[in-house]
Amino acid sequence: MNATYKMEELVGSSTESFADAARNAVEKAASSMGEAAWFEVVEMRGAVREGMVAEFQVKLKVGCKV
Amino acid sequence: MNATYKMEELVGSSTESFADAARNAVEKAASSMGEAAWFEVVEMRGAVREGMVAEFQVKLKVGCKV
Amino acid sequence: MNATYKMEELVGSSTESFADAARNAVEKAASSMGEAAWFEVVEMRGAVREGMVAEFQVKLKVGCKV
Amino acid sequence: MNATYKMEELVGSSTESFADAARNAVEKAASSMGEAAWFEVVEMRGAVREGMVAEFQVKLKVGCKV
Amino acid sequence: MNATYKMEELVGSSTESFADAARNAVEKAASSMGEAAWFEVVEMRGAVREGMVAEFQVKLKVGCKV
Amino acid sequence: MNATYKMEELVGSSTESFADAARNAVEKAASSMGEAAWFEVVEMRGAVREGMVAEFQVKLKVGCKV
Amino acid sequence: MNATYKMEELVGSSTESFADAARNAVEKAASSMGEAAWFEVVEMRGAVREGMVAEFQVKLKVGCKV
Amino acid sequence: MNATYKMEELVGSSTESFADAARNAVEKAASSMGEAAWFEVVEMRGAVREGMVAEFQVKLKVGCKV
Amino acid sequence: MNATYKMEELVGSSTESFADAARNAVEKAASSMGEAAWFEVVEMRGAVREGMVAEFQVKLKVGCKV
Amino acid sequence: MNATYKMEELVGSSTESFADAARNAVEKAASSMGEAAWFEVVEMRGAVREGMVAEFQVKLKVGCKV
Amino acid sequence: MNATYKMEELVGSSTESFADAARNAVEKAASSMGEAAWFEVVEMRGAVREGMVAEFQVKLKVGCKV
Amino acid sequence: MNATYKMEELVGSSTESFADAARNAVEKAASSMGEAAWFEVVEMRGAVREGMVAEFQVKLKVGCKV
Repeated sequence: MNATYKMEELVGSSTESFADAARNAVEKAASSMGEAAWFEVVEMRGAVREGMVAEFQVKLKVGCKV
Repeated sequence: MNATYKMEELVGSSTESFADAARNAVEKAASSMGEAAWFEVVEMRGAVREGMVAEFQVKLKVGCKV
Repeated sequence: MNATYKMEELVGSSTESFADAARNAVEKAASSMGEAAWFEVVEMRGAVREGMVAEFQVKLKVGCKV
Repeated sequence: MNATYKMEELVGSSTESFADAARNAVEKAASSMGEAAWFEVVEMRGAVREGMVAEFQVKLKVGCKV
Repeated sequence: MNATYKMEELVGSSTESFADAARNAVEKAASSMGEAAWFEVVEMRGAVREGMVAEFQVKLKVGCKV
Repeated sequence: MNATYKMEELVGSSTESFADAARNAVEKAASSMGEAAWFEVVEMRGAVREGMVAEFQVKLKVGCKV
Repeated sequence: MNATYKMEELVGSSTESFADAARNAVEKAASSMGEAAWFEVVEMRGAVREGMVAEFQVKLKVGCKV
Repeated sequence: MNATYKMEELVGSSTESFADAARNAVEKAASSMGEAAWFEVVEMRGAVREGMVAEFQVKLKVGCKV
Repeated sequence: MNATYKMEELVGSSTESFADAARNAVEKAASSMGEAAWFEVVEMRGAVREGMVAEFQVKLKVGCKV
Repeated sequence: MNATYKMEELVGSSTESFADAARNAVEKAASSMGEAAWFEVVEMRGAVREGMVAEFQVKLKVGCKV
Repeated sequence: MNATYKMEELVGSSTESFADAARNAVEKAASSMGEAAWFEVVEMRGAVREGMVAEFQVKLKVGCKV
Repeated sequence: MNATYKMEELVGSSTESFADAARNAVEKAASSMGEAAWFEVVEMRGAVREGMVAEFQVKLKVGCKV
């Protein structure tokens, strides 16, 4: 009862989509965080190279049980 | 002329992507709203289970003709 | 050194996804902008027709080398 | 005592002014809402046609007694 | 699966505390909304009379299962 | 040189328009403030009575020379 | 008619609750302000000492009749 | 299909009203922009001279077809 | 001199009040953080069950001496 | 105990830097405010003349003991 | 009278300070913009290399006479 | 490829300038964070003592390679 969570802020990236960038951030950081329960998108950006989108980037906060 | 719209706020979800979560919200609520014309994304979140993204969630406002 | 960038603000659209709408905006405007280096998502919206999502729209700022 | 209100979000439009667009939204929706007490402007936009402002649009929330 | 929620925006009030104002809004509106699952505080205000706080007011959005 | 200004925050109202509400706030408070140089709109609201807009209200900050 | 208000911004504190911190700010400043009519919460913070919350702080704007 | 727009940010002014300031910005800049389709208000300010509002100013973004 | 702090972001909950939820977060996490000096409220939410508020939740950032 | 503060909003300027503009605002207004304890930056702007930055301007709120 | 301005958004950088980064952006872009009158800071960031701040970056909007 | 970053939030201070406060935060925390790549300014404040600015404080997020 009265659970407490810690928010970790991450930035993930993907050449495919914003959803994939979020997945990559959560999954890569999973082992070093507590038990993750949800995430919240904070910012979406990307890299452009030679006039094309080269990378989608998502900054998100992950809620982890303390 | 001088059209009036009502905004309905919804949260949709999908195991696949943010775009799919938006589609699910709009389409499930379509029958109970007036004639929807556009939507605006308010927030993007998701659920995490066992270190993986289990669900993408999109909160959006839908503009419906009054 | 001490590079300067100009931000161009664009809106792109796609019938498929938000990522695709971002790609379309960056790629269509590439020829008339300077050398683009990154983009930042400002707003996500979409059009609804007959109760279904007809178009995903992404407003973004593109950073171009001056 | 301890009154409760429900906020309805509307978009109104006018060819004349922002004030008129707010008036049109409140008055058109009045019959289908509870007793309205106040409104808050959320966003102001407009349509442009042939280089001229064709329509002022105001998105607002109306507080209605429950 | 892929649950959809509708957000209702309410303002509640209390002479005691912000928590009580939130409780009053959720509980008074419960019967006319779908099954409520969570709420988010949007704004906190209050009324002052004769130099004392006469009322705490909380504007909140309630997520209800569609 | 290196002028300093103090911001005063006011709310004005009008039965006519938002511009008029701003004018009323600035002009009524002018005598009790220092020399006002500019204003910035912070919020626009209004009162509704019997289903019609009864008052436009504008909250603004006024910059006054110290 | 067309009343004008001045907003005063205050920070109050309490060892008990956020509501109490708001009450303390309004009541302590009442004698030096005009006739206060409402307040709006701007920020909520607090002090921590020896791992415990030592003080709740509320920053608020008070609307006072001019 | 999949239209792309460029946002231009302008500030217009008027001695009469905010609506007029928006009109002046859109119409003066029309000839040097692409085909404008809509505008979004970003900020509303004004100049004060001798205790009276001397000018209403509106900052807006205009969406122009690329 | 020139002290440096690290902000930790937490979510606490309580069945009683927002103040209590803040207290629970700070006190539960105290042992695993550096010496906490202040907190800032980021978001207030809650859980609803059977039409009643079941839990108040406060997201906050805690400033800890490095 | 349970100290109360009043926030004063100021704009300072400097030909040198943002830090200097903040210093100028605080120091010039010090004599007419209560005992100032801290400031918060609200906005940073500047004037440009003949293609060069002529002035840095900082808008800030100063917390003064009541 | 009724002057119209166009806002240009730039990012400048400096190894020294935020003020210098703003100066570099305004001065480098001056020749390709109309007559610049003021700037507004939108964002401040920087690059870090080997544990030290390598570059201060300022994103700003410049108001140029049309 | 598809790099992941963790954001650490810090507050640094300086008696000299905002740039110096940012430098102090990044450099003091460098040894306990992963490899830092960039920072983003979140908030700028300061302490005032005897009517003078005694300290500039910068809250920032640092992006560190995971």
